[in-house]
Amino acid sequence: MIDVYAYATPNSIKVPITLEELGLDYTVHAVNVKQGEQKQEAFLTLNPNAKVPVLVHADAATGERLVLSESAAILVYLAERQGRLLPAAGNERARVFEQLFFHASAVSPNFGNAGFFTKLASEAQPLAQQRFSGESERLTALLDGVLAGCRFVAGDNYSIADIAHFGWFWRRAFAGIELDAYPNLSRWYASIEQRPAVQRAITRVNALVASA
Amino acid sequence: MIDVYAYATPNSIKVPITLEELGLDYTVHAVNVKQGEQKQEAFLTLNPNAKVPVLVHADAATGERLVLSESAAILVYLAERQGRLLPAAGNERARVFEQLFFHASAVSPNFGNAGFFTKLASEAQPLAQQRFSGESERLTALLDGVLAGCRFVAGDNYSIADIAHFGWFWRRAFAGIELDAYPNLSRWYASIEQRPAVQRAITRVNALVASA
Repeated sequence: MIDVYAYATPNSIKVPITLEELGLDYTVHAVNVKQGEQKQEAFLTLNPNAKVPVLVHADAATGERLVLSESAAILVYLAERQGRLLPAAGNERARVFEQLFFHASAVSPNFGNAGFFTKLASEAQPLAQQRFSGESERLTALLDGVLAGCRFVAGDNYSIADIAHFGWFWRRAFAGIELDAYPNLSRWYASIEQRPAVQRAITRVNALVASA
Repeated sequence: MIDVYAYATPNSIKVPITLEELGLDYTVHAVNVKQGEQKQEAFLTLNPNAKVPVLVHADAATGERLVLSESAAILVYLAERQGRLLPAAGNERARVFEQLFFHASAVSPNFGNAGFFTKLASEAQPLAQQRFSGESERLTALLDGVLAGCRFVAGDNYSIADIAHFGWFWRRAFAGIELDAYPNLSRWYASIEQRPAVQRAITRVNALVASA
């Protein structure tokens, strides 16, 4: 049995997309981050770091129960379990991890901080705002360059690295990023967005907000 | 043949530590980030993202050449290749990835930004400085809590997740973090620091600065 604790956030969406692509059944539980539910005791027992998403996997075959945080770690876990969306070996596998960590360490925190200092900060911090907005543009241009040479971010095959990047580009407006100036990224984004599994996942996380 | 492009930085040190632990021969090439060498054309051909470390592995057996960036992706590549420092399956493997991504997405950017706004920013940004310094303390306390329940960050066994965290705690002064208030983290840090492989790696990256 697979339970996902999530909301309509850039990191949350990655997990339902992966589950849909892999054809696995799951239940989504809304954690309303706008109302701070991720900081309440009930959620902190699942993830003391107070972040969505969290995966809870009760494995009927082994009797083991895994409670796992960090969206990219969840993607690796699911992909390896099913033997899909992550090459088993070789340089292509290394490229997927390179993009997963480029996303986690660069794209995700810079997009998040760009949005925070542009839209949420209680007072203007111009140097901080410029730093993170500028870095977000630089990283977007880099990814556009990667996609000039290959169909997907880690080569010729769709992988969990595409799903990870998609999460934040789906919510790029928060970071003030537009795709118009990035033709390769635009082509890639459209090709991911139109996948039936991605559409189903978007519908499911948007329903969490509608029912909140 | 393994070549590492690095400097005495929190992310660079992780690669020599892993290579030393695995008993692999390698050559380290200094990229003087204080003088901006990571932004020069020669380095950008290795990593357009202008960040150290980079691994270049010319595999004599297969004739393949891999140029890989992102320190954690390099650690995963080396650990999987040698079948050590990363459990092959199960919940313990998932925990290693959870900690690797917790480090990459949270510890590393927050420590880096805390140091930047405290020590390097051209004008004071108090709200930004407080945000990143506060988050760095919160994350350090979380990790101390994890280490209250196990010997290493992902369980009972030393792994590449310990090596990843060690990199930034080795350079914690930049982020204004002290270990005194964190007994479990202090015990863990001392146990990693005294490992012969870690000492050899520190000596090698410090030599890059001395010869610069």
